[in-house]
Amino acid sequence: MRREAALFGFREIATPIFEHTELFTLRSGPNVVEEIYAFQDKGGRDISLRPELTAPAMRFFVNELSSSARPLKMFYFGQCFRYERPQSGRFREFFQFGAELIGDPGPESDAEVIALAASIMRRIGLKQYTIRIGHIGVLRNMLAEAGVGPEAAPLILQKLDKKEYEEASQRMRDAGMDDERIGKVIDITNTVGPVEVLDKISGDAREHLLGIFRVLQAYGIDNIQVDLGVVRGLDYYTGMVFEMDAPVLGAEKQICGGGSYSLTELFGGEKTFSTGFGIGFDRTLLALEKEGYQAPVHSIDVYVLPVGDSTRQEAHHIAAQLRRAGISTDIDLMGRSLSKSMKYANGINARRTVIVGDKEMAQGSVTVRDMVTGEQTLVKREELLTFLEK
Amino acid sequence: MRREAALFGFREIATPIFEHTELFTLRSGPNVVEEIYAFQDKGGRDISLRPELTAPAMRFFVNELSSSARPLKMFYFGQCFRYERPQSGRFREFFQFGAELIGDPGPESDAEVIALAASIMRRIGLKQYTIRIGHIGVLRNMLAEAGVGPEAAPLILQKLDKKEYEEASQRMRDAGMDDERIGKVIDITNTVGPVEVLDKISGDAREHLLGIFRVLQAYGIDNIQVDLGVVRGLDYYTGMVFEMDAPVLGAEKQICGGGSYSLTELFGGEKTFSTGFGIGFDRTLLALEKEGYQAPVHSIDVYVLPVGDSTRQEAHHIAAQLRRAGISTDIDLMGRSLSKSMKYANGINARRTVIVGDKEMAQGSVTVRDMVTGEQTLVKREELLTFLEK
Repeated sequence: MRREAALFGFREIATPIFEHTELFTLRSGPNVVEEIYAFQDKGGRDISLRPELTAPAMRFFVNELSSSARPLKMFYFGQCFRYERPQSGRFREFFQFGAELIGDPGPESDAEVIALAASIMRRIGLKQYTIRIGHIGVLRNMLAEAGVGPEAAPLILQKLDKKEYEEASQRMRDAGMDDERIGKVIDITNTVGPVEVLDKISGDAREHLLGIFRVLQAYGIDNIQVDLGVVRGLDYYTGMVFEMDAPVLGAEKQICGGGSYSLTELFGGEKTFSTGFGIGFDRTLLALEKEGYQAPVHSIDVYVLPVGDSTRQEAHHIAAQLRRAGISTDIDLMGRSLSKSMKYANGINARRTVIVGDKEMAQGSVTVRDMVTGEQTLVKREELLTFLEK
Repeated sequence: MRREAALFGFREIATPIFEHTELFTLRSGPNVVEEIYAFQDKGGRDISLRPELTAPAMRFFVNELSSSARPLKMFYFGQCFRYERPQSGRFREFFQFGAELIGDPGPESDAEVIALAASIMRRIGLKQYTIRIGHIGVLRNMLAEAGVGPEAAPLILQKLDKKEYEEASQRMRDAGMDDERIGKVIDITNTVGPVEVLDKISGDAREHLLGIFRVLQAYGIDNIQVDLGVVRGLDYYTGMVFEMDAPVLGAEKQICGGGSYSLTELFGGEKTFSTGFGIGFDRTLLALEKEGYQAPVHSIDVYVLPVGDSTRQEAHHIAAQLRRAGISTDIDLMGRSLSKSMKYANGINARRTVIVGDKEMAQGSVTVRDMVTGEQTLVKREELLTFLEK
């Protein structure tokens, strides 16, 4: 994930594990305190273990980087914490990988961010994933045109986000909307499909999404859909919103969410449009595992094996030389027998052992054993490094 | 640091940011609560942000890895937290890099751990550092032979560790020691020098330290001294203890500390001898900076620059292709002018720009500009990747 983000020109940042609690209530509302690790420190300060990394990243931007050239592209990887009931792929301490592109609200910047998220999933080897892209402006505009005020709209959007249509309809009725308009909102929320379904809507949101799809086409990303029901839970999104699913996970399938937003003005900075995403790292790992992904087996280049006490000093010489040359090397430290050492070397997946015996050492040589083929070669001591580097 | 540890056959582990507070009081005594971020969570559990990583690593070992082949070699890098007054190179949230070799109390294992710490400092480019090695058994035995009981000894050792000789002497006097014995203890505490000063002592500790120095000689490590005054503050050390200093830091010069110890029995496991160290990462960074270390400048391989709207789609095609091939690539996302884009490309240290112009595109070519020499080359589109990979 880090490598892919760097290939896209994003740079890694790191922010503290805890922040003033206010940072998170500013972003997510006061109720978030119920779900997070919020404490008072010994100095009476209200602090919280970070439940997410967008707010810290934007605080960092406002405090330290606000005069940087735009767009500014950053990513992060770190632990977050929520006081919630643990479930499959959802822990109280969890890892989040995320990226933010700061300072440009255009469709190409939105597409760049989505392309990064998709490229990360391809690079880590996730076989099946889908991307659903919507635009928060579509439903917001429909509600505004129907006369729904800024107090009622967020709650309606939250219900629509959770696909709780009955409650959403009731709230729309309470806000004075007629059945026809309510039906249209529900219909738009259920609009899912290829880019052509955008014909259903018009205006800036449509043009913006078409621009995004055009760039993503250049990336050859095809597991992508319009989904105008993607609303995301939070008020601060300003335009495009997207989610990624790993179908192998079943009901709890979302592995990534993001969109364009503005938070800087909440943290004392100028209003700055940004686009970002967060990947649920643990859930993504779970998806990889369910797809049968095998993590690479840990191995080591060389195991150095002194036979008898008289060769131990020379064995340490050899280990020091190999390590300095960048060859990963382990060595018997306990003076074990040849057979026990061989067993240990197998256990740590050593590719070769360098056996340092009395007689060979007297002749200025060591024995190199290939642990896969079992082949043994007598190698002159001064040629050992060259031999192993081949 | 990670690379060097891997070259030595150590494997990375990660443990949670917070633990039950008891884990740290078991290791460091009840008073540690005054200096750490200790809280109650919403479920009434006493939890603490980890102030160090040895206790979590050993808890992890006891819970998950106790049946692994010995020796087990692990390292970690992560944030730790102490509620103390911040000072130069010492923060409330700080990073610690550490390693533990579990399951062998022999001198070669101790030497392996010291060699890793020293090799890390060499690999990261720290020019000046010294290693001081002692043995907790020397002073402990002297106190025991003088009849000092297990209640009084730790406090005396703590005073000796802090070089508070008057207080230490008073406590030794209170414990019934005569002036001659007290003088000898102070003399040993001040025993610093090359390996020959070990002639002052005898017994197992001397043999053990000689064994360690022999292996470290094989590593060509020469900035190393005996210092029998290294006591370390904590009771759980069992034998060899060592510290590393960066003289460039002045008074607060210690950057690494470690030794051999046993903690597993405190955490419900079998008694297991281990050797480990912790590097104060922030202070080590500070030492590097004071020595004039220059962090590598961040740069990017290619900046893709579409000229005019008609070439933007092709520009995204190119960026996607290069990134997929592992070439780090940024691209103009905002439709800026050529001169502004060039300025941005310079700002992010792009090594080359790929200029996608109308006319060249019509001929199936792009212009590649070397940002250092200013040289421009017309390159056929299908040869671009090969050209850039040269």
